[in-house]
Amino acid sequence: MSSTAQIGVTGLAVMGRNLARNFARNGYTVAVHNRTAARTRDLVREFGGEGDFVPTESAEEFVAALERPRRLVVMVKAGAPTDAVIAEFAPLLDAGDMIIDGGNAHFADTRRREHELRERGIHFVGAGISGGEEGALNGPSIMPGGSAESYGTLGPMLERISAVAKDGRPCVVHVGPDGAGHFVKMVHNGIEYADMQLIGEAYQLLRDVGGYGPGEIADIFRAWNRGRLDSYLIEITADVLSHVDAATGRPFVDVVLDQAEQKGTGRWTVQSALDLGVPVSGIAEAVFARAVSGHSALREASRHLGGPTPRALGGDEAAAFADRVEQALYASKIVSYTQGFHQIAAASAEYGWDIDLGEVAAVWRGGCIIRAAFLDRITAAYDALPQLPSLLADKGFADEIAVAQDDWRAVVATAVTEGVPTPGFAAALAYYDSLRAPRLPAALTQGQRDYFGAHTYHRTDRDGVFHTLWGGDRTEVAG
Amino acid sequence: MSSTAQIGVTGLAVMGRNLARNFARNGYTVAVHNRTAARTRDLVREFGGEGDFVPTESAEEFVAALERPRRLVVMVKAGAPTDAVIAEFAPLLDAGDMIIDGGNAHFADTRRREHELRERGIHFVGAGISGGEEGALNGPSIMPGGSAESYGTLGPMLERISAVAKDGRPCVVHVGPDGAGHFVKMVHNGIEYADMQLIGEAYQLLRDVGGYGPGEIADIFRAWNRGRLDSYLIEITADVLSHVDAATGRPFVDVVLDQAEQKGTGRWTVQSALDLGVPVSGIAEAVFARAVSGHSALREASRHLGGPTPRALGGDEAAAFADRVEQALYASKIVSYTQGFHQIAAASAEYGWDIDLGEVAAVWRGGCIIRAAFLDRITAAYDALPQLPSLLADKGFADEIAVAQDDWRAVVATAVTEGVPTPGFAAALAYYDSLRAPRLPAALTQGQRDYFGAHTYHRTDRDGVFHTLWGGDRTEVAG
Repeated sequence: MSSTAQIGVTGLAVMGRNLARNFARNGYTVAVHNRTAARTRDLVREFGGEGDFVPTESAEEFVAALERPRRLVVMVKAGAPTDAVIAEFAPLLDAGDMIIDGGNAHFADTRRREHELRERGIHFVGAGISGGEEGALNGPSIMPGGSAESYGTLGPMLERISAVAKDGRPCVVHVGPDGAGHFVKMVHNGIEYADMQLIGEAYQLLRDVGGYGPGEIADIFRAWNRGRLDSYLIEITADVLSHVDAATGRPFVDVVLDQAEQKGTGRWTVQSALDLGVPVSGIAEAVFARAVSGHSALREASRHLGGPTPRALGGDEAAAFADRVEQALYASKIVSYTQGFHQIAAASAEYGWDIDLGEVAAVWRGGCIIRAAFLDRITAAYDALPQLPSLLADKGFADEIAVAQDDWRAVVATAVTEGVPTPGFAAALAYYDSLRAPRLPAALTQGQRDYFGAHTYHRTDRDGVFHTLWGGDRTEVAG
Repeated sequence: MSSTAQIGVTGLAVMGRNLARNFARNGYTVAVHNRTAARTRDLVREFGGEGDFVPTESAEEFVAALERPRRLVVMVKAGAPTDAVIAEFAPLLDAGDMIIDGGNAHFADTRRREHELRERGIHFVGAGISGGEEGALNGPSIMPGGSAESYGTLGPMLERISAVAKDGRPCVVHVGPDGAGHFVKMVHNGIEYADMQLIGEAYQLLRDVGGYGPGEIADIFRAWNRGRLDSYLIEITADVLSHVDAATGRPFVDVVLDQAEQKGTGRWTVQSALDLGVPVSGIAEAVFARAVSGHSALREASRHLGGPTPRALGGDEAAAFADRVEQALYASKIVSYTQGFHQIAAASAEYGWDIDLGEVAAVWRGGCIIRAAFLDRITAAYDALPQLPSLLADKGFADEIAVAQDDWRAVVATAVTEGVPTPGFAAALAYYDSLRAPRLPAALTQGQRDYFGAHTYHRTDRDGVFHTLWGGDRTEVAG
């Protein structure tokens, strides 16, 4: 067999299969391989007409089918399966070859693998791929890490198969070295959690306080989708809310069990943010909200707890409230993205990745779950000032949030008064007010820490480290 | 040299030195050892009159000085230094001997060390010790893990040196196997973060909305300390707030830089809770609040953000507001402890620790930073119903929070309206309202996940796993 394939895909579950088809449809000859060969044969039988596939049944055959430098895409489960595939293939590769991990690996694993393979001359590219099955087939958002050299030959291929933003730019960028790609994909997912939680809170408020039914709320989301909230998630929210369950004739959302599941990237995002010292309260509250929803015994035991039952507004009052909820949702969304981009910036500094934040926003504009018109604004903000210390420091966002904040406050105040849980809205607002506060009670915290643990403190009026002799005469000494 | 010491302490920085003195003052013969022998000699010279110390200069000499089974307390920095000390001493020990790690180790490290040493017949006891320098000397709260067998001979000694609660019980309990002790100490610290953050928010509200000065707020805290909030942290808050800076004549809290520092156990608590799927939003917000306070560039860039300036109330209105803040603080505190104990219960189930939650609350009643009258209530709740699914399921707490919740809501609504950041109060209230909500927007989340990722959902009306063909005719199929 001659080495004719420009790219190979091993692991042909739905994501791998669709990615292989995407490459083939775009004119590449694609070597395909799977641990159980039946899946490889199925792929070629069902989709062989879409392009040039080279089915292979052994690792040796697969590697032999690839042009040099070889480009080998691994689409298996994150964790031990990925390590097993690398252990199987790496000995068959030569210096300069590339292994591309398109799974949802933790960035720390990607860093470890990249370092190990680099010593053997192999490029390891951890590539975040967003967009699910449909994106993998028709154009995902792709976030590759790894060496700049690997991107030189791999990049143009990814640019051919990726989603394309409205301005014609492919939704792929070389994010940065080693684990940068998987890191950015992780934060993408964390932001996705936050977006979904905020949408959920808006829905619940419109339902409980606005007094609207799911179909009416779908219409409200459709209207929002024509404005600045224009996004895939708002669009599908309207679809989900307007869907009627065939079996019962009831709104679909009312027959679904209200226990949200999660796969772990949201949790990873928060855990990494804690390591980096970056507040990501919006993402954290979204992860916690899913956890709360799943604790059915706890919820059952809490049904009797005291609190108000929301009084639904009517007519014009409800419509005015819906407008305020849009403001609250938009303002909270700005905060989520502010926190997520802060985390990426902090990781970029910590790991030496030199990530272009505007480019990150740009590659999320198509193919992925959080694609939204809003992202153009973020790209523009970073283009205008690459060293922007925070999205909230951008004049455009600051101006919008200044306009939104009265309504945002009113919505959170209404929610807490009426007993509707809005952890995401409230956390975002508290973050906003914390940042703009002239003084924070952190001074008291430092005083307490110095009192019980002699942890010392700094002063506002002169440099140095100080300690007060709390147990003694309370004089101040150098710390 | 004869083996006369009942206990040995290696690592004689302030915590180790004070713990050694505590043992000696309580009648034990204490072998002492330090990497640099000068510190050992200093201890004996300065405090030798307090009891029987056996100074030793080498590892061999130290081990030889101990009665069998040997009890060797390690008081060095967590992490690599602890491993180094274990590597140095373990080869000198015999089966049945005990190494007690009194540092702030991560419980996962403690689990690893315990497993490794158990294979060599050595008991490894990870013991959380709370109370700082002063507690180590005069009576800390002690949370030992490790084998029940080790506690048989070690326990009575710890009970002699520990703090004593008001009812005369020593503040020490065998928490559970391997890492259980360090885990519970970690959550103790997480709760401490939350307590401090809630106190900080109460202070800021009394200052900005109540219009009170720090000295007046100190008086309010002193009054609260005579009621159900009676606790060490409230007491020292009053002390800190009433302290006047000698250099400037200004309130001390106004000259301290408002950037709170942290050492990592709060972060660990949240990271572990995320792994366990337990919502600990109160602790998370406290950790994030410290992080926000330290991001001075971000805060500087955010000074211009739009928002209200709080209007201070006066006279009777202010006094009434202060009463409401006490209700909000107390209700939020109940939630923090509910979340923390949920985390301990979840870890106990996950790691097979069989932790007695009421005993945990009992050992925190003296010696440690979060000691409080409140903890008796928690012990009573778990004594009444050991399988209590949540502290909020206890009738006493539920009744109190039902009374408090109107004021709690009013305080959070005021805070968001006036622009005073209260992330802790707000997160606690959102958690409370989430638990008691008849329906959560998690149903919408599941619908969205099924739409974009075919993640499936459950129904409220029948068992099974389902998927809607969103891209097709929207019929429902088995998932």
